[in-house]
Parts: sequence; structure tokens; C-alpha cells
Amino acid sequence: MNKPVPPLFGTAKITTTPLPNSRKVYVTSEFDSSIRVPFREIAIEDPANPSFRVYDASGPYTDADVEIDVRKGLARPRTAWVEARGNTEAYDGRPVKPEDNGDLKVSQNAAEFPILIKPLRGIGDAPVTQLEYARAGIITKEMIFVAERENLGRKMLADAAAKIADGNSFGAAIPPYITPEFVREEIARGRAIIPANINHGELEPTIIGRNFLVKINANIGNSAVTSSIEEEVEKLVWSIRWGADTVMDLSTGRNIHTTREWILRNSPVPIGTVPIYQALEKVHGDPTKLDWDVFSDTLIEQCEQGVDYFTIHAGVRLAHVPLTAKRVTGIVSRGGSIMAGWCLAHHKESFLYDRFGDICDIMRKYDVSFSLGDGLRPGSIADANDAAQFAELETLGELTQVAWKKGCQVMIEGPGHVPMHKIKENMDKQLRECGEAPFYTLGPLTTDIAPGYDHITSAIGAAMIGWFGTAMLCYVTPKEHLGLPNRDDVKVGVITYKIAAHAADLAKGHPAAQLRDDALSKARFEFRWQDQFNLSLDPDTACAYHDETLPKTAHKTAHFCSMCGPKFCSMKITQDIRDKAARDEGMAAKSKEFAEAGAKVYVPVD
Amino acid sequence: MNKPVPPLFGTAKITTTPLPNSRKVYVTSEFDSSIRVPFREIAIEDPANPSFRVYDASGPYTDADVEIDVRKGLARPRTAWVEARGNTEAYDGRPVKPEDNGDLKVSQNAAEFPILIKPLRGIGDAPVTQLEYARAGIITKEMIFVAERENLGRKMLADAAAKIADGNSFGAAIPPYITPEFVREEIARGRAIIPANINHGELEPTIIGRNFLVKINANIGNSAVTSSIEEEVEKLVWSIRWGADTVMDLSTGRNIHTTREWILRNSPVPIGTVPIYQALEKVHGDPTKLDWDVFSDTLIEQCEQGVDYFTIHAGVRLAHVPLTAKRVTGIVSRGGSIMAGWCLAHHKESFLYDRFGDICDIMRKYDVSFSLGDGLRPGSIADANDAAQFAELETLGELTQVAWKKGCQVMIEGPGHVPMHKIKENMDKQLRECGEAPFYTLGPLTTDIAPGYDHITSAIGAAMIGWFGTAMLCYVTPKEHLGLPNRDDVKVGVITYKIAAHAADLAKGHPAAQLRDDALSKARFEFRWQDQFNLSLDPDTACAYHDETLPKTAHKTAHFCSMCGPKFCSMKITQDIRDKAARDEGMAAKSKEFAEAGAKVYVPVD
Repeated sequence: MNKPVPPLFGTAKITTTPLPNSRKVYVTSEFDSSIRVPFREIAIEDPANPSFRVYDASGPYTDADVEIDVRKGLARPRTAWVEARGNTEAYDGRPVKPEDNGDLKVSQNAAEFPILIKPLRGIGDAPVTQLEYARAGIITKEMIFVAERENLGRKMLADAAAKIADGNSFGAAIPPYITPEFVREEIARGRAIIPANINHGELEPTIIGRNFLVKINANIGNSAVTSSIEEEVEKLVWSIRWGADTVMDLSTGRNIHTTREWILRNSPVPIGTVPIYQALEKVHGDPTKLDWDVFSDTLIEQCEQGVDYFTIHAGVRLAHVPLTAKRVTGIVSRGGSIMAGWCLAHHKESFLYDRFGDICDIMRKYDVSFSLGDGLRPGSIADANDAAQFAELETLGELTQVAWKKGCQVMIEGPGHVPMHKIKENMDKQLRECGEAPFYTLGPLTTDIAPGYDHITSAIGAAMIGWFGTAMLCYVTPKEHLGLPNRDDVKVGVITYKIAAHAADLAKGHPAAQLRDDALSKARFEFRWQDQFNLSLDPDTACAYHDETLPKTAHKTAHFCSMCGPKFCSMKITQDIRDKAARDEGMAAKSKEFAEAGAKVYVPVD
Repeated sequence: MNKPVPPLFGTAKITTTPLPNSRKVYVTSEFDSSIRVPFREIAIEDPANPSFRVYDASGPYTDADVEIDVRKGLARPRTAWVEARGNTEAYDGRPVKPEDNGDLKVSQNAAEFPILIKPLRGIGDAPVTQLEYARAGIITKEMIFVAERENLGRKMLADAAAKIADGNSFGAAIPPYITPEFVREEIARGRAIIPANINHGELEPTIIGRNFLVKINANIGNSAVTSSIEEEVEKLVWSIRWGADTVMDLSTGRNIHTTREWILRNSPVPIGTVPIYQALEKVHGDPTKLDWDVFSDTLIEQCEQGVDYFTIHAGVRLAHVPLTAKRVTGIVSRGGSIMAGWCLAHHKESFLYDRFGDICDIMRKYDVSFSLGDGLRPGSIADANDAAQFAELETLGELTQVAWKKGCQVMIEGPGHVPMHKIKENMDKQLRECGEAPFYTLGPLTTDIAPGYDHITSAIGAAMIGWFGTAMLCYVTPKEHLGLPNRDDVKVGVITYKIAAHAADLAKGHPAAQLRDDALSKARFEFRWQDQFNLSLDPDTACAYHDETLPKTAHKTAHFCSMCGPKFCSMKITQDIRDKAARDEGMAAKSKEFAEAGAKVYVPVD
């Protein structure tokens, strides 16, 4: 089915090098020897632990042994898992229509992805979704994969229970070790999801739920104003390189179908979309012209492509719109404003709400997960936790029950702009209203006064709500409210949200979370500069900052940094004390007293 | 007493322009018409509120009507306030000695500040400190100044009590309006301080306490490796331009006395130092050679110059050092490691602890405030809230009582590296052990794994501990752990900490805090781009980010941004709905229903 290969990537380059001192390792599952789970192993100079393993969402791009050709896409090993379950059928998919890409003239069309793949769909009422299998007591390959992944391929830690006890998870139920059966139970009760469209064969599955590691999402996507397909694929690769667990393609401009196809065929992480964006393109931007036919056609189009989760703004009901009347910032969600516009124009109930059962029926056949959109989220501190927001959240709780009955996996989107003291109320209400379905929040931003720094205003809120129980954090970049993020912004957004997610994991008491902090801090105290850089979330930046003031190689082994200089470094003084004690006979006796109090006064250097 | 003016500022430039669309205004106190309090007024295009007033720590540098000459220093109006109280005397100060600047050869000496000022000191037992006056029932000019400043020069807001009730201040006692008498009471009970050395005549006083706005500190200072006096003075000006409330001069290299003199004579904000750093320079870097003589000599030297607060690591007692034996990162405070080294070498109790009363006697005579240093703060997540840290905190509580008895103002320094779930314990213990003396924390960093981004790892902790009750947050820059911050790093650190402090003010329910969020969000919703930039913490960056993708002037008035493009902007759709409703006769009847539900469906644009 191959078409001629177009010269798509003339200028944009895909980043494929491994991270510094790192290599891809694959751990064979102890539960199923056919499953190999990828991790990144960082080589360090600690004799006790010469390597350190970290969770790795970056896919084959950072595997030096894999040849990347974006025109062929990634390998599709997961398709065999799906087909082996025997409940799906391949069929001739919906043909691509001109309106899928914005009714472009031929000359404006971007090159199509060269390989056409026949889509799969579920057969009849047989189980298709991870939720349906979980309820039936069946542990899927995807469940085994995520179990190993969550454990970081490690055996259970000796102090796992103590770590959990030391944390505070606000009523979550984090186990010392993740078994496939635990994954199945969490999915069966709707408390976690594995977004995994049966047509996304390239996927390395990931789990989203309160009792697992906190995940982060990066938004990419072109708009009518800027960006190209090439840039978007590289943004995907770039996002996952730095740690994005899922990526949303929020494209709204031209070539929207083609862009998505390139992204999906090259994505090892779950891809989410907001189908109403494309539906609106198909009716030339007039929300009042939207209807069930164009929307359901768009759903099927994207289901067949392999999108893993859809944001559906079915909670924006006609009756909720007046509740936004006195807001400072009205409706700030694009999907929310589209649906509010539709409701007001027709003065009818939202067709997304009215046809919600039909939406479920479509999505179930492909195991596309719901991300129930918060179209009425607050866009300012003034509007936080107001009647409109909470009325919608209650509707999302009602829709969760409908989707679950239909066999669909569900997560719930959350705000937005919320001051710190109103964050926990969001989490508590979401858990209560939505039956503990995973919460997926945008930030929240804890103040409105810092455009240009909203990755930071929101990281504060994201870390807190992640600690309280949010399962996935949608990143915010420095360009939020101002413009479309470029490559650098995407990286800053991802790293910032990895910080927030990791801070939440630590506070919740995830058994292995602190290992990386400890390894890095030990390297810091022992002046292993390269190890400190390489164990960090962003080795390139850490090393570059160090080199700004102390560029010579010798300085990377020096027992001081430019913050204090050689004479004032506290860690150096600490070491000097120790050295002096070793030399000085008179000190020896006194040193012994300290030694008796704690074996050694300081951690040995070298 | 003028000496020849040296050509000190050949290359470094002092930044003196006002911020965009801003001018300095002075509000005459309603409590004392001789007192004029500076604010920044931002001109905006909101007909209802054509200007917006913000707290302004930037001093005369942003006043277009003041001519700045760093070789003359700032005006010293506060000296008259001090002298009018009649309890101080001018005297011939301690002469500058070669060791004050590191025993430099003449050729290495930086140019001295050209004006020599006779220092003042308290006479006998007469009250000198703000604490002593407060206890005596006397309201000083400084107290009146800070009261107006905290109120932002505004009358009491009609909804002040409601805002306080809407917040959560964890047992603080924020009043709806700050009166000079309230300031006096808070200082008298030790719950707030005004760091204000009687020799710092250039000072615009600021108050630090749990019931006032959360303040931030920026660290500057050269080291043996890098930086010059010129750069340090500009770093001061640059720090306060972006909002630093106090500045610590942590210089450790050459010309340490001279650098400090230039900084003080040009600083409108309180300056803090760590005197042990200079004392160590005087004994050529060998901590074992430190003694009371060299330390007390250094205290007097710095008291006479006008330093407003001293970090004193008197809580690092001999018995605490073994408690650090099993730590992952030992002792990470420079002052802490110096004193631990001294204690171990001599195997004696710390002379700072033994002579604490004498230290108080010196500092009282100049009203230098204590910042009791946390020399045993944790340097890693692993070491947070451990026995060493809390033993020191208990000692600091004991020393607080001593200092208070001696009439000295006190604040307490706090960590450090602390995971989110262990932050509140720090605050609660500090309040309990230290009699509610103001807490002044460094971050805390909520994870160790992101060198290069520690302004963010720490902003999360800073916002939270600020909310819980910390009175001042010491900034952390992106260079933390890696190198000395440059100008850009200082700005990023200050803005990040303004975010943390403001997020805390909002959550605590400070009556006027949300006004700025509301004004900016209203500007955002009404597409007043310039107002959105100018109301933000960093107008230059916000505007530059916007211009990256939409550089034309027309776009700054356009009702969309490059994030979504013209067709998808939710705010534009919102407006379109409204416009359509106005045009469409058929819609009018339905619109009326919404109008009745809330007067108007959306906030009017234009």
C-alpha cells in the first residue's frame, strides 16, 4: 500500500540522539516474557551504583540501535496484541475527504503520510476496551506493560512500605509494588485508564490514575497563523524526549488530518485531540453550523487514525451558559465557547450532551478514552470555583456513569486559574462527583499577573493538585496567553511539569520516587559534577549553566563552584574538616566521639 | 568630607527608566502629613479605572524626576527621623582597615565611596530599636510609612472583610486595613520587624511579618571567582526594579567593605549580610582562627555602615554537629559549615552561641535586626525535617527570647530542600518554637532533580510556605547549585518569587491582593494587549513573547492571539456570540432570558 515517498523533511530535523551518558534498556517482564519494557539507564561514577534507571517515554528516538525514518513511521508491535485478542476486524476505512484538511487547493496540500493502514474496529458487543477486559477479569498485555513501567523495572524496594507511610497521599491507595492484577483492578473500577486506541499500533502504553506515577501532557499543534507539519512532528519527538507522557495535537489550521496522521504514525505515546476543532474547520468556522453528522464523521475519521483520547465538551449545557454571565473572563475554553455559541444560537441543548450515548458507542469500538472537557473552566482567579464551573463538573460526573456503562474509559479535565486555597476543593469535588475517575488538570495557575511566566504560576498549582490526587497534569508553557510555543517553550513547559509531577510523587510517597533525588544529591555532595548534570531532568541546561562561569574541564572535577568560590564552598569546608580530622592526631580522640555517635561525620568523598 | 570622585562606573550602567506606562507617585500619609510613600502607577485604557497602583520597592531609580548619581548616593531623609528621636549620637567610626577589603595591595583596591558619613549609635539604655519604641507605645515614622505602604496608599476596600473571610491564613490575623497602631502592636509582640539600621538614611522602610504582604529577598554579591563592584550595584538596582523587598550582599571576595559601602549608599531597601563571611576573610579563610575579637570588630564595622539585618548562625551548637553525620548532603550552609568547622576544631561550644548576649548589645545600638541563620538546613530531600535541622530550630527559639529581652528585632531563617508534604511541619514548628517571630525561608526546593530550574522547584515550596505563614521568601535563581547568577538570572529569580509571594497573598486573603489579577484579567478578556503587558510582573517579557509570533502593531489591538488564530479564539467567539445576539432580532427574545438571569451574558468589550 506504499505511495511514493515525499521529501517532507527537507528542513526540519528529528532529534534522535540519546541523552548524555544514557542508553535505552529493555526489561523483560517477569509476568510475561514476550513483553519488553523500555527504560533509560544513566551511567554514573558511583561505585556502589554505576547506573541509574529512569522512566522513559521518549520511545525509539533515543535508542541508538533503532533507525528512525519518519516517512515509514515507528514499528507497530502492539497491533499483534490487539489482533490476538480476536475481537476486532480490519475494514476499509472512511476515505480522506477534502474538508478533512480544510478544503485546500492541491497546491496547498501537505505531503500525505506514505503508508495507508487499514483500520481495525471492535466486532459487535465483544470486549474491545481495556475497561471491558478489566471487568471481565482479563489482564491485557497493555496492563502488564504498564505494571513493569510503573515499577521502573525494579524489584520491590525493601523500604517501599515505609516510603508510602512517610508520604501523604490524601486517601489514595498506592501499593508498594504494582502488579498487573492491581492495574486490572484499578481500571475495572474506573480509577485508572490506559488510553490506547486499537489503531495506535506504535504505542508504548502508559497508565493514568491516582495510584500511579503522576503523568504530564504536552500540547502541540499548528494554528492558522503559524507552524508546519515538519515542526509539529519534531515537537512531538522533542516533547517526549524531555518527558511528556502524552501529547495532544490541538491543530486548528490547514492540513489538520494529514498533520495528525504523521504525528500518530510516529508517536510512541498516547495522542489526544479535541475533535470539535476539526469539525468546526469542516463548517468553515461557524459554530452554529455544527451538527451531529459532521461531528460523528469527524469522530470516526480520528478513531480510524488511532487517536487515543478525545476531549469532548459534553458538559457545556445550555442551562450552564447564563452562569458565566458575571464572570471576569467569561468562557476561555475554545471548545467551551464553540459549544456555548451553538447552544445560544439554536437555543437548544448541546448535541454533544444529547447524543452522548452515541458518542460512547463510536469510541468504544476503537477504545478511544474520554477526556471529558471542562469547557467552563475559570480563566481568572476571580472566576475560580464558581457556579458555572461546578455545574459543569457535576454534569461530567453524570456523563462518566454513562460512559462507564457503555464500556468506555474516562478521565475528567479540570482547571484552569485557581488560587492556592481553592485548589483542594476542586480535587475533592472531582473525586466525589466523578466516582474517582482520573483527574486531568491544566495547571492550575495560582495567579493571573505573570504572563510570560505562566509555566511557573501554574507549576505551583499543578504540583499541589498532583499531590492531592490529580493523575495527569497538562503543561503550560511560558507563551501561555501570549502566543504559540516554539521548541524552546515546549521544552521549558515539559521540564517544568516533570518537576511538578515529581514533586507530587515524592509528597504522595511513591516508593521509588526519591531514589533519583538521593542519587543526584549524593553526586552533588561528592562533587561528581557530570553525574549531577546527567541525573537531572535537563542535563544540557545544567551543564551549560555551570560552564557559563567555570567553563574549563578541570572545574567539573573541582570541589567548588562559582557560587561561593574555592574558599567558601560549604561542601568543601565540610570535606576540609574531615581531612583535618584524619591528619590531626589531637583531633582523633574527639573525632572518635562523633564517630561513635553516628559511624561517620560526613559522607566520604571519593 | 567629599573625596575626589573616582570614575567607577566606566562600563556598568545603572538602569533608571520607569517601567512601561508607569510613573512614580507619592501618597501623603493620612496619619502624618510629613510622610510621603512611593508607589508605581500604571496608566491603562480602562475608562472605569484609568490607572492602577502597585507596591513599589524600586526606590528613586524609577522616578523620572530624580537625578541618579551613584557616586553621591541616594538622599538620606530617614536620618532626620532617627535624629529627631534624640536617642542617638554621631561619633567617629571605626577606621577602615586593610583587612576589611582582604589585605589588598593599593593597586587592587576598588574606588572607595567618595563621601564619608559619621555613624550614629544609640546612647546608653535609651530606646533605639523599633521593638523598643513599639514596646514603649511609641509609633515611629517608620511604622507610619509601612502602614501606608501595606495599604497601597488606598482607603479601606469595601469588601476587605469578605476577602479575608474568603482566604485561608492558617491562623494569621490579617486586618482589613493596616493602621500605624496595628504595626506597632505587631512589632511589640515580635511578630513583625522593620529592618532599619539607624545608619541607613537612604532606606524606604518595609515590614516583614505574617500579617503583612509576603516579602521577597534577592541575594547579590561577588565571589573570589567573578563579578565586580559595578555589577553588584547594578544588580541591586536591577533586583529592586523587578520587586525585591530586601537585598542580601553575600560578597565573599576582595573589596568586601568597599562593595558594601557602595551598595548601602545606593539602596532604598533593607540590606542584609552574613558577617561571618567577612570575618573569615579577615583570618584568611581558616575557620579555626575565628574568634570573638575579629567577629565583634566585623559586626561594628558593618553596623556603622548601615547594614539592616545580620544572618547570625548562633544555632549551630557543638552538640548538633554529630546529628548531621548520616545526612546525604551534610551541612550545606556556608555559615553553618564554618561554625561546625570551628566547633569541631576547638571542640568547644560555638562562640556565637556563648557570646550571643554581647552580639545583641552591639546590634541593639544600631537597630540591626537578627536573621537567625539555619546553618543546619537540609540540602536534600533526604535530609528534610531531620534531627539536626529541628535541634537548631529549637535553639533559634531560645535565642529569640534572649534577643527580644535585649530589645532586638528578630526573624528566623528556614530551609532549604523539603518535599511538599513536610513543608507545613516546618512552619508550624517555627511558629511554636520561635514565638511567632517572622519566618524567612530559602524556597524550599520540593525536589533535588532539576538543577537549572531550581527557581521553579523552590517557587512551589515558597508559595506554599508563604501561604502557611512565612513572612519573607529568599529567592533562588536558575543558577542555584551551578554558578553565580548573572543579571538575567537575578531578574528571573525575582519575578519567580514575586509570583510565589503574590500567590501566597491571594491564598491568605490579603484584602487588596486580587485587585491586580482582576485588572489584568479584565484587560485580557477585553483584548487590551498593552494593558495586559503593563499590568504584569514583567511587561518587557510579556510583550516580547507576544511579538515573537505576532509582531505587528495591528496585532496588539487584534481580538485574537497566535495561540488559536483569529478563527478559534474563545474570547473572540464569546464576543461574536454577543455581537450576533445584538444584531439578530430572533435572538433578542432568547437573549433577554439570559439577561434576566444575570443582567448581561458577557462582560462588555469596548
